[in-house]
Amino acid sequence: MTSVLQRRQFSLMAAFFQTLFLILFSVFCRYTDPLEESRRVYSGTDYPLFQDVHLMIFVGFGFLMAFLKRYGFSAVSVNLLLSAFVIQYAILLRGFLTKRFHDTGYFTIGIPEMVAADSSCAVVLITMGVLLGRLTPSQFLLLSFFETSLAVCVEHVVFNILHVNDSGRSLCVHTFGAYFGLAAAVVGTKKNVMEMDEQGGIHHSDLFSMIGTLLLWVFFPSFNASVQEPEDARHRAIMNTYLAMASATVTTFLFSSMVDKLARFNMIHIQSSTLSGGVAIGCAANVILLPFHAVSVGVIASIFSVFGHAWLSPKMERRFHIFDTCGVHNLHGLPGILSGIIGIFFAWFYDAESYGKTLYHIYPYWKGGPMNGDRENQSQALYQLAGLTIVLSCSICGGLLTGLILRIKMWNQVDDPNLPHGETNYYAHADVSYLSKYRHAQEEQQLRERERLHEIY
Amino acid sequence: MTSVLQRRQFSLMAAFFQTLFLILFSVFCRYTDPLEESRRVYSGTDYPLFQDVHLMIFVGFGFLMAFLKRYGFSAVSVNLLLSAFVIQYAILLRGFLTKRFHDTGYFTIGIPEMVAADSSCAVVLITMGVLLGRLTPSQFLLLSFFETSLAVCVEHVVFNILHVNDSGRSLCVHTFGAYFGLAAAVVGTKKNVMEMDEQGGIHHSDLFSMIGTLLLWVFFPSFNASVQEPEDARHRAIMNTYLAMASATVTTFLFSSMVDKLARFNMIHIQSSTLSGGVAIGCAANVILLPFHAVSVGVIASIFSVFGHAWLSPKMERRFHIFDTCGVHNLHGLPGILSGIIGIFFAWFYDAESYGKTLYHIYPYWKGGPMNGDRENQSQALYQLAGLTIVLSCSICGGLLTGLILRIKMWNQVDDPNLPHGETNYYAHADVSYLSKYRHAQEEQQLRERERLHEIY
Amino acid sequence: MTSVLQRRQFSLMAAFFQTLFLILFSVFCRYTDPLEESRRVYSGTDYPLFQDVHLMIFVGFGFLMAFLKRYGFSAVSVNLLLSAFVIQYAILLRGFLTKRFHDTGYFTIGIPEMVAADSSCAVVLITMGVLLGRLTPSQFLLLSFFETSLAVCVEHVVFNILHVNDSGRSLCVHTFGAYFGLAAAVVGTKKNVMEMDEQGGIHHSDLFSMIGTLLLWVFFPSFNASVQEPEDARHRAIMNTYLAMASATVTTFLFSSMVDKLARFNMIHIQSSTLSGGVAIGCAANVILLPFHAVSVGVIASIFSVFGHAWLSPKMERRFHIFDTCGVHNLHGLPGILSGIIGIFFAWFYDAESYGKTLYHIYPYWKGGPMNGDRENQSQALYQLAGLTIVLSCSICGGLLTGLILRIKMWNQVDDPNLPHGETNYYAHADVSYLSKYRHAQEEQQLRERERLHEIY
Repeated sequence: MTSVLQRRQFSLMAAFFQTLFLILFSVFCRYTDPLEESRRVYSGTDYPLFQDVHLMIFVGFGFLMAFLKRYGFSAVSVNLLLSAFVIQYAILLRGFLTKRFHDTGYFTIGIPEMVAADSSCAVVLITMGVLLGRLTPSQFLLLSFFETSLAVCVEHVVFNILHVNDSGRSLCVHTFGAYFGLAAAVVGTKKNVMEMDEQGGIHHSDLFSMIGTLLLWVFFPSFNASVQEPEDARHRAIMNTYLAMASATVTTFLFSSMVDKLARFNMIHIQSSTLSGGVAIGCAANVILLPFHAVSVGVIASIFSVFGHAWLSPKMERRFHIFDTCGVHNLHGLPGILSGIIGIFFAWFYDAESYGKTLYHIYPYWKGGPMNGDRENQSQALYQLAGLTIVLSCSICGGLLTGLILRIKMWNQVDDPNLPHGETNYYAHADVSYLSKYRHAQEEQQLRERERLHEIY
Repeated sequence: MTSVLQRRQFSLMAAFFQTLFLILFSVFCRYTDPLEESRRVYSGTDYPLFQDVHLMIFVGFGFLMAFLKRYGFSAVSVNLLLSAFVIQYAILLRGFLTKRFHDTGYFTIGIPEMVAADSSCAVVLITMGVLLGRLTPSQFLLLSFFETSLAVCVEHVVFNILHVNDSGRSLCVHTFGAYFGLAAAVVGTKKNVMEMDEQGGIHHSDLFSMIGTLLLWVFFPSFNASVQEPEDARHRAIMNTYLAMASATVTTFLFSSMVDKLARFNMIHIQSSTLSGGVAIGCAANVILLPFHAVSVGVIASIFSVFGHAWLSPKMERRFHIFDTCGVHNLHGLPGILSGIIGIFFAWFYDAESYGKTLYHIYPYWKGGPMNGDRENQSQALYQLAGLTIVLSCSICGGLLTGLILRIKMWNQVDDPNLPHGETNYYAHADVSYLSKYRHAQEEQQLRERERLHEIY
Repeated sequence: MTSVLQRRQFSLMAAFFQTLFLILFSVFCRYTDPLEESRRVYSGTDYPLFQDVHLMIFVGFGFLMAFLKRYGFSAVSVNLLLSAFVIQYAILLRGFLTKRFHDTGYFTIGIPEMVAADSSCAVVLITMGVLLGRLTPSQFLLLSFFETSLAVCVEHVVFNILHVNDSGRSLCVHTFGAYFGLAAAVVGTKKNVMEMDEQGGIHHSDLFSMIGTLLLWVFFPSFNASVQEPEDARHRAIMNTYLAMASATVTTFLFSSMVDKLARFNMIHIQSSTLSGGVAIGCAANVILLPFHAVSVGVIASIFSVFGHAWLSPKMERRFHIFDTCGVHNLHGLPGILSGIIGIFFAWFYDAESYGKTLYHIYPYWKGGPMNGDRENQSQALYQLAGLTIVLSCSICGGLLTGLILRIKMWNQVDDPNLPHGETNYYAHADVSYLSKYRHAQEEQQLRERERLHEIY
């Protein structure tokens, strides 16, 4: 009985959540009417940006993690599962935090809510990058549930209570996801799946991984601009991200070659550090007014990221036994913190009058605005610092707690590679043992063969 | 002489059709002028959606079928050939059915006609999924010609004469394509290419296939919304598809694990059933008003699809000898029929007044509208049923007939794998024997070598 | 010392350029304000088209060149490096040529400038296609610098001084890039990397290459329409490209089968000639008024392209020792020249009055327009011819000169494959010797092992 429960653990868990979602959707959720409400028209500008972000989440993040030979298919398909799960959960959770829900007892959803739901997927996928190959699907599903719950609440505090500016969600998505994952990795399982691979030749998987890198590279301006509202802020978010990506890429190649004794490029730098510019500009993408500030941010971010890969990650593995499968810390963690610092810096030093009338879209609680705020440069900068602190502390505490919960023997665990081979229990191992079409076809074939023989004899 | 004719069959056929298209375009086809006519502006909303659909057709469908190791390149390139052929043919055929053509003797084309042409490609590509690896390019070209002719006419009847609502074209594209292909497979060639593969390790091809799956997954909302016109109907089509996709994906993983004794996920379910939500919501995507209805449709569709893969397909192979290379029946066939039923259901039970002024865009022949229609809930539901019936019967009859035509010995046929190897005739085998760049380069190299030697001696 | 300088050559070069860019951006570059200036709104129409082009450049071109087994990763990553470099350089260079810069001492950038910068990337990437596998990253960086400098100046002359119509930039991008590369290949290194590959089985790389082909195929209408301004010209550019692509594809399959003795399709034709329609229509995409003209252009272009692959390229290799790694001449060179001729033809023979009020957007110097031009059919056609001549002569001279510069022994060179193996100097070889994640992980692993042993003993 226990064995059956354990084998069917994933199915039961998924069935429970999907049923719960169905009920909650039926009671509390309605669609926004684009004709009646005085919203900006969605289809001219928002839907194409949503599709760019959607492509990043499902194809970009999926293939970025496909570089591990044995886990390539697993990465792409678990990515799909978790995203589909988080989309539904995040829509519901955000809905419960809206003013409309408190007033009327139901909430409405539209294109902007879809963009927000997709950004919640990114949080979980970044965390998945740290833990890839070391959790079973059941554990990943639980992780998604806990992490999304916390992430949506933290985001609510940061945006709607502290009125922090985080235009590309570098704090709430990249920093949160990275440190949550790293904290979970400390207390969770410590094995490094890299060690389990026998072969070194991984040419094709690296090309698959580049599909992910390039899609994220191409659509990062859309990601950082997708929730920006006045035309000029969106324009700045697009342009700043574009320039930061370009300068970060050149600098990544520069330092990747520099840190190797034989001046070779390192594939992992090219696959991840080239994206660091987009993460680091995130928090202030709508704020930066001068092109060369964006170019500088890209240069600094990629230096951090390459040195993180080259020096920090090996040290973290050896000293603190924190294994980071996809190098998430150097792509999302460090540049995320950098992004928070840049946000503080520009809130402090930029003259607020340069934004003109659209200032209150960027810093809603600035003095003289419609919210009767009282902030000035220093106070806004302090709030930005508070945002960064809250994101970091909540993500680390949440990650540690979730890691502890996932260690409970009740959940299916990935096999210990040190166990003798006979003790492998297949169903706990489900993230690598997919039934392929061919195995399926072969089994069918054998079945038919036997049937045919049966007919004859 | 016969041998030359047979070897050049494909070229002659393609030359005939391309010349015919050229003549027809020159005599009958003009461009729409976006400045003069009172059309909605195309570029703000329509062109981005068209590009999403375009990407689905050419990259999504192509790579979805790339999972067969020997046929990967063939799938992707024949997909390109047939799409380029059908685009031209469908534009001409639809043009001949327009009112403007009957009035003035020519027809005009613009962005909406491009979207329609791309959806005709989808019909043929779905059918190709059933027959992949079992037809030669000549046969595929003929098949495209016959199928598109019938599909465009059936679509004309369903939309313009019966005024059936089929917003995402689930009836006219998915259901039609799937049953046409299955019927052609009954009378056509019965070999299963799966059996011809010796090796089971198909890791990389499965990752390629996931590129297709994910692109279709991401852009399905655009596919279902691309031809929807009033802003609110398009908004509903997008949102409903998005939610149905998410719930179908979670449920697919749930049941895929459930139907396996060892609770493993099955790759073919992940690669196809996760898309069933988008197919099943198609017919009613612009109709459904409540989010939880969309979520429910997704759940039901994926259950049908997974059980189709697990129980129905093996039975169809054994009992009726219908071989379905890519499992099209479970991705497009069953969810397509489900979609028709859902369309009937919602036409019957939804209160028509909830749509407000845009009701007549959805059900043009509803009473009180500009077309002086007389339909009410029940009558519209009956017309929806009529639409489903016509699509099913026409596709099956057309498929049977086409299958018979393709069996005629006149056309190049794929080699029988049971023949002794020496009797393989290469040119009939063209869908696997591509000349690679390398073979070409090697031949060139040998040529140069020989020339060099010649110079010396 | 010399050895260190040579090993760090790439890093030093990249550091020099990136620092220079940073300074120039800080002094001369500002953002366009989308709210203040009387520009058309960018986000409704321009940003989605920009994203299509962006995807073509980074993913499309990158994977198109990924077919060489040993150079797959190199192609994709050097593509990324050069694009990120050229984006920054082209923005600066174009800025210095603007009227605003001459008036005020600084220039502004926005979405249209991003599109232009991306099209400059395409020039360099096309040239890279000729030389792939035969230059080191240092050499590629230098090449990008020289080529972009020349290309932007030539484009300035063609567009702003001669007022030539080149809507899809077939002259300034495709023709220029192809002949620049071929000229550089004559005087530069003459080795053919194809010969260096031992194995013929390249199934997966060919599928990767098809990702590139299909993305370029799908987004070619956006490429040709991205800089078109009046609604009707953009509409024509989209529709003409769409039809030319479709007819070129069918014709490519037709002739690819025709030129093979056994009627097999040739992969290289499918991967490149199918795109020739989009290149050939480029120069006149906004001009052509009748659908069948577009269909005809596609047919003619693909015939040129296939025969180029089948007859011209082998002859060029044998007679003139011009090696063209990716067959760029047949995809961009020949169809580019064809495009120029088509531009001349349609300027001469089309009645200018058919364009109505938007004539002066297409041919700004036509008589009676706001620029007080004096051109008529013949004179405009002559200017179109002048444009083609200038592009061809400048690209060939520039390519020859750059090829000579790149031969200087000072720069890192790719190893001569005829050298004995021991003399290979790794750091000059950097475009194939990437440090993989796995090698890195294994080295780390060994390090940890040794440390652990150290702890024990």
